[in-house]
Order: sequence, then structure tokens, then C-alpha cells
Amino acid sequence: MKIAILPGDGIGPEIVEQAVNVLNVLGEQFEMETAAVGGAGYAAHGHPLPDGTLKLAKEADAILFGAVGDWQYDTLERSLRPEQAILGLRKNLGLFANLRPAILYPELAGASTLKPEVVSGLDILLVRELTGDVYFGQPRGVRTAPDGAFKGEREGFDTMRYAESEIRRVAHVAFQAAQKRDKRLTSVDKANVLETFQFWRDIVTDVHKEYPDVALDHMYIDNAAMQLVRAPKKFDVVVTGNMFGDILSDQAAMLTGSIGMLPSASLDANNKGLYEPSHGSAPDIAGKGIANPLATILSAAMMLRFSLNKAEQADRVENAVKKVLAQGLRTADIYEAGTTKVSTKEMGAAVVKAL
Amino acid sequence: MKIAILPGDGIGPEIVEQAVNVLNVLGEQFEMETAAVGGAGYAAHGHPLPDGTLKLAKEADAILFGAVGDWQYDTLERSLRPEQAILGLRKNLGLFANLRPAILYPELAGASTLKPEVVSGLDILLVRELTGDVYFGQPRGVRTAPDGAFKGEREGFDTMRYAESEIRRVAHVAFQAAQKRDKRLTSVDKANVLETFQFWRDIVTDVHKEYPDVALDHMYIDNAAMQLVRAPKKFDVVVTGNMFGDILSDQAAMLTGSIGMLPSASLDANNKGLYEPSHGSAPDIAGKGIANPLATILSAAMMLRFSLNKAEQADRVENAVKKVLAQGLRTADIYEAGTTKVSTKEMGAAVVKAL
Ligand SMILES: CC(C)[C@H](C(=O)O)[C@@H](O)C(=O)O
Ligand SMILES: CC(C)[C@H](C(=O)O)[C@@H](O)C(=O)O
Repeated sequence: MKIAILPGDGIGPEIVEQAVNVLNVLGEQFEMETAAVGGAGYAAHGHPLPDGTLKLAKEADAILFGAVGDWQYDTLERSLRPEQAILGLRKNLGLFANLRPAILYPELAGASTLKPEVVSGLDILLVRELTGDVYFGQPRGVRTAPDGAFKGEREGFDTMRYAESEIRRVAHVAFQAAQKRDKRLTSVDKANVLETFQFWRDIVTDVHKEYPDVALDHMYIDNAAMQLVRAPKKFDVVVTGNMFGDILSDQAAMLTGSIGMLPSASLDANNKGLYEPSHGSAPDIAGKGIANPLATILSAAMMLRFSLNKAEQADRVENAVKKVLAQGLRTADIYEAGTTKVSTKEMGAAVVKAL
Repeated sequence: MKIAILPGDGIGPEIVEQAVNVLNVLGEQFEMETAAVGGAGYAAHGHPLPDGTLKLAKEADAILFGAVGDWQYDTLERSLRPEQAILGLRKNLGLFANLRPAILYPELAGASTLKPEVVSGLDILLVRELTGDVYFGQPRGVRTAPDGAFKGEREGFDTMRYAESEIRRVAHVAFQAAQKRDKRLTSVDKANVLETFQFWRDIVTDVHKEYPDVALDHMYIDNAAMQLVRAPKKFDVVVTGNMFGDILSDQAAMLTGSIGMLPSASLDANNKGLYEPSHGSAPDIAGKGIANPLATILSAAMMLRFSLNKAEQADRVENAVKKVLAQGLRTADIYEAGTTKVSTKEMGAAVVKAL
């Protein structure tokens, strides 16, 4: 099986290195090939998603992705900026289902800005649609307004759109995920205002007929953002569109206070996937050897489970991570008095040792 | 001066009654006229925003609005549902600038789900654009997809759009608000993905030239949703579009844990405004006499300040509210052991007495 390794920018290379070390001690035969992406892709080949990188990603059975973005690329025109790589990979590979767990490890409950009783034991799975919505909808651009109250003025515009089968397929992923958990699914929309999301609600309701064992409820996005603050533990699985999912998944991740622990998977229709930590490239701490590699290591575990069909190995990796937490090892981002502060490399080595 | 009183549904009538009582003891001459809106408008006249109600709202110098929505109207077709009243009022009256303070009163710090050190002293002003964006953009609907990967399928679609002058006018409101506070403005967008919000960023940056005394920074919406959880006190004034503002203003309100305390103002170009509590119609507690009237009373204070040019009276009302809190009076939603639980009417009467 072939894994494309795309370390990217900032802390990307450091954290991906540790996840690769973990994959290497599992006793499996993985072919791994590394390519430049993001700012590193632009620096090496003049584009954030170089042709060779896209080709490798297409050929591979799974992709392990670090993070992209660094200050030096902020002034490039949009089409050359690092984040275009991630948008391009999602679209070109059809990675429509983004799974973003927000889990609070008991040992890290203190890291949250929320009161312990509100978040301890938090375990939400957010399923974000990833290739549609206003992210990719055409037409879009800057133009002279063709109609409306501001006709004749310059305006920026985008198109929000969701086709029936796009909604159906991500709804199936979410219902199936709920079946494996507490059998509760919340679909988040803005059906009271948007045609796109009234349509979304209708289709999700229709797909529900195939999953009578799952309890479905619908919630407006503004209310969901409130309930995540008020009573986040009430959620089990949440499914929503690309734009709302971008917002809610980051909000949910931050509730834990330990976003350095949270992995993610972006899957296509055949469970091929791209796996990346939920956090960003953190250029401010890049090269210092202090970044937390656990989100990337846990992303590798998700890869083992979903794309490489090695559920037992995924369990092993997840248990090894739990073990190092129980041992009191902490990178700087999750350090508290009474625990042992370790570097990126030490944390990776501890996971390898626990395996 | 004429005030349109639109109580609406659920707890709307109870809480508006208390705010009217407060307005009546200020010693001013206000002409007040009441009309049905929301579900009550539909029940009385077959439409959530009856012609007579819209006419009254247009004639008046300011509008005091309760809340709309009740379960019995949930099955109506969308164009007749209660929330269309609020969308219709905003659009017809050109109420483009929504001011949503998120303030945590020291006495109520315990009500938040966040740790006291994270939220105590919280004081954010969110300025939400209210008449543009994907909320109102045409074209929209359900159609056969004319192009793209799902061509020929049924799809829901909406248009996100912002014209230059729409962005300029709300940016001016936000910069001017920042000048009266800590002189820091955060503009929230998704310029890395959306053409509309790259344009938004460009225009806000241009308007900034007229306000060199205000520090402006730009933040992506996903990051803003995270920072509101991680370090909400870092924000002073936030300006954003209609859709993002819907989400962030509710999230910010819920950080306080006491949304029953938070007022809002929606202003047109001449400071005529609609004033309403930030919370909803809470049909589950309607008629029980336990709703918190303070958000509505504080909305009346904002009305005095912004639309009726009675800043001193606004101060009086706000101080009266602070006084009843200091006296330990609490409605059920903000009650904690050691304070005195009071009804809607008792709370209103206490504010009147404090005046
Ligand atoms: C970098 C950006 C384009 C991206 C997104 O908005 O999808 C990121 O925020 C994410 O959530 O993966
Ligand atoms: C009721 C709904 C249409 C409205 C909105 O989305 O603007 C509400 O959520 C608000 O924020 O005032």
C-alpha cells in the first residue's frame, strides 16, 4: 500500500516526521513517498499544488498531510497561496466527507477554557461536506452588479449551491457514523433563510428513512454555535455543509483546549482519504522542536482505520497515545504543572516506545 | 416622538410590557402604538408582517420589538413563517447595521459555561451587516443544475454578494463605534476562499484610511469562532457580514451565559432603528411570567441613545438595571443560590422603582 507524505509548511515537517516514525514501527509494509505542498510546493515548483504532488496524491491509497501556510506567502496572489493546495486536493480527489472528532481526553480537561463539568468527556464527531457549497460554487468573482439595489456598483459575489446527490452521499456517511456511536445525528443548516439549506434539510430528512435506528434532529447554524458553548456534550454526530462545517469544526475543536490533539480525515466515495491534524502550520513555533505531533499521529491512526483497513493497528496507535498521556508526557501546548514537558521528538519517541 | 411597539410571539408580549412601563416613567412624551408581528401577525392578518404593521414601522422614529416564533407556525410555508417578519422589516426599512453587545455583568460571571478568568469583564461589540450577503442575494431557489459536476440534477442555490457601498457604510459604523471604545476593530471574513469576502477585506482596508486612530485587523471566520472560545476578551469591536454575524453574535452572546441580558439595535442610515433582545421567543416558558425582561429594557435604553437622542435617559435606564442586579434580584434564567428569584413583572417593577 502506498502512502503519499505531504509535510507542507511551518511545523508540518516536524510533526509528520513523528507520524512516519510511528507508521514505520507497526511491522507493516507501507510504501511512502514524500512531495512538496503549500508554500513549500510554491518554493520548489512555483505552485502550491505542483503537478507531481497531485499525481502522487492520486496514485496513493492514502495521504498523510502536515499543514500549509507561512507568512512569507501571505502576499502572493490568491491562486498561488498555500491554502489553495488543500482546496485543490479536496476537489481533485473528490474528498467530500470530512470527519473531525472533537474529543477531550480526561487528562487534558484542565486545558479547556470551559468549566470542567461542561466539557469533561466531550466526544463529538463532526461530519463536514468538503467539496461543495459556496467554497466552490460557480459563478463567482468581482463584477459590476447586474441588478438589485446596488446595480451598476462594483460587487464581490459567490454562489452557494448543493446538488441532491452531494447532500445524499455526505448524509449517508454521517448516518453510518452515528450508527457506530450513540445513534444521534444533528443536521445543521439555515433552512429559515437559505434555499440551499432548506433543500439540504429536505434531502437529509429523506435519507433518514434508510436509518430508522438513528435519531435525527435539525438545528440552525446560529443555534448550533450557541449550543456548542452552552451544552456541547449533548451532541453526538453533527453533519453540515462546507462553510458551516468550517466554522463549527474549529469552534468544537477549541472547546477542548487541546487542538494539538485532534486529527481529521477527508474521504472520497471509496474511503481513500487525506489525513491531517486539525490545527494549522503555526509558523511562529516552526523549527523550535516544541510542536505537538499527537494530532498527526492520531491522523495516521485514522488513516490505518479508514483507508488502509488496519483497524487493529489503528487501535494500537490510539492506545499508545493514551499511554503517553497517562505517563504524564506533555508538549508545551498542553503542559500543566505536575506533568513532564517534552519536545516534538521526545513525544514521538514515547509513542514509538509505547508501541 | 413615535415608537412602534411590536411584541410578537412567545414571551415577546410579557417582556415588551415591562420595557414600555420603563419608558413610561422617564418623564418624556412618547407616542406609542402597538401592532401585531410574526405569528401574531399571521394569526390576526394572515401575514407575519401585515401591511399595517409595516406602515407603522415606517412612520415611527423607532421600533421596540419583542421576539417572533412559536411551534404552531413551524409548519407554515416559509414565506408565512414568523421570522419573515424580521427579515422583511430589516430589508424594507434598510436597517443595515446590527449592533450586538456581548457584555458579562460582574454579578453574573457564574452563569457562563466558561471559566471566570476567561470571561469576567467581557465587553465585545459585534457589528453585523444586516441587509445584504447570502441572506437576500438574488438569484436563489431550487432548480436543475445548469452546469458543473452535478449538471442536470436538482439543486438548491443562493447568491452571496456585497456591493462596495454596502460594505463601506457598515465599516463606517464599526470604525466609529471603535473610536468611542478601545479603538480596536477586527473585521471577520473568509477572504482565503470567497470572492465576496476578499472584496469585503479590500473595502474595509480602504475605509480604514479615514480612521487612522483605530487599529484594524482581519481574521478568518473559522479562526474568529476559535478565538471567541479561547480568548474572547481580546476582542473590542468586531465587524462582519450578515451570515457570519448571525453565527458569531449568537456565539458571543452565549459566552456570557446570560443571553437574557443582551440587547440589540438595528440601524438605518439616519439612526432610525429597531431594538430587540438578543434572545428568542422562548415559547416553552411563554405565559409563565418568568422570562427575563432586562434584555428588552436594555434594548429600550439603546433606542433612547441611538434613535431618540436621549443619552441621559439611556444612562438612567442602564444604571437602574445595574442597581437591580446589585440588589440581588434575578429572574429564573440567571438565578443562583444566594440571590432573590423574581418574576418578569417583579423585575420590571424593580427597574421602574430604581428609576
Ligand atoms: C485553509 C482553508 C481554505 C481551510 C478551509 O476553510 O476549509 C481550513 O480552514 C480548513 O478548515 O481546512
Ligand atoms: C430568525 C432569523 C432569520 C434571524 C437571522 O438569521 O438573522 C435570527 O437568527 C437573528 O439573528 O436575528
